[in-house]
Amino acid sequence: MYPESFARLINYLKHLPGVGEKSAQRYAFALLAEDEDYLKAFGETLEKIKEDIAPCPNCGFISQKGHCPICDDVMRDHESIMVVSYDQDVIAMEKTNTYHGLYHVLHGVISSSKGVYPEDLNIESLLNRLDSTKEIIIAISPTIDGETTALYLDKLLKRHDVLVTRIAHGLPMGASLDYADELTLIQALRNRKKMED
Amino acid sequence: MYPESFARLINYLKHLPGVGEKSAQRYAFALLAEDEDYLKAFGETLEKIKEDIAPCPNCGFISQKGHCPICDDVMRDHESIMVVSYDQDVIAMEKTNTYHGLYHVLHGVISSSKGVYPEDLNIESLLNRLDSTKEIIIAISPTIDGETTALYLDKLLKRHDVLVTRIAHGLPMGASLDYADELTLIQALRNRKKMED
Repeated sequence: MYPESFARLINYLKHLPGVGEKSAQRYAFALLAEDEDYLKAFGETLEKIKEDIAPCPNCGFISQKGHCPICDDVMRDHESIMVVSYDQDVIAMEKTNTYHGLYHVLHGVISSSKGVYPEDLNIESLLNRLDSTKEIIIAISPTIDGETTALYLDKLLKRHDVLVTRIAHGLPMGASLDYADELTLIQALRNRKKMED
Repeated sequence: MYPESFARLINYLKHLPGVGEKSAQRYAFALLAEDEDYLKAFGETLEKIKEDIAPCPNCGFISQKGHCPICDDVMRDHESIMVVSYDQDVIAMEKTNTYHGLYHVLHGVISSSKGVYPEDLNIESLLNRLDSTKEIIIAISPTIDGETTALYLDKLLKRHDVLVTRIAHGLPMGASLDYADELTLIQALRNRKKMED
């Protein structure tokens, strides 16, 4: 019933993760209400997005024409690498303004149920980076697959002369104790620290 | 931190209704994983979407180069017009395969709080269609603004020689009575009908 090009637009929008018929229609009408310049710029960006974007050959983070803003930054601590699952995790960590080392993006987690094995992840290139590295910080979400991945990496990295650490798990700031799940409470208790004066 | 074109893509996606930073990032990564052909076709559709799409001058429904699939359909009942708020409502009603008349899309509802007045809606052109019309069915969502709009239209159309009806309000099919809100129950009771044998 919709005009052909509009129906096509709805179909393209339905490719987005978690977007069904209703949301796609809503998005399509919102796009139709935007001005021509925005649509032209958006369309051109879409068409060319794959041209100049690729994972950094060193750390795997999404970057433009091989220039990784993190690996190329001489002001950062090049002796520490934080291993994360996804590009977004780098952004989340960078927002804290606390970590100044390098990253290594795995692009996923090991998952036997989804058929993702170590060789499907960006792990091999991590081993090539160990010579100049003193500490590897594992910062993978503590889900079941995340735990599997962390343990696999720990076992793999132990063979090399590098300190392997892991970000702490416990009660999130601002969370209320009686709403926390049991595993989190167990971790929070295990990882307890002496109060600082 | 993201490559410039990728950050731009995220910003464009944030224009979509209800899409914040996180969803926009998720969509952008999903788009990056699509193949070139899809991105090219999607981009081209976006750029040209406004070129050939406009509201039908007769009923206001979204249509291509002035050809409205509904107004142009000689098999439909041209003596009845269903008044709806949005294009999507036409699609929802068409899916029922029950109504075979014409439509009139207002493109909104009267809302004093949002500053939407009758002259901002596609109402004037409705009056020009009354000569050949026997019944006007008002099918506007029963919200506060929707009720205002329905009452306004009813008052306006009463001056003309046309039957004005309204779709029924009551308990939705499959709904459980004790979860229904009071206004719906009041409407459902008021609109009760004799059981058919």
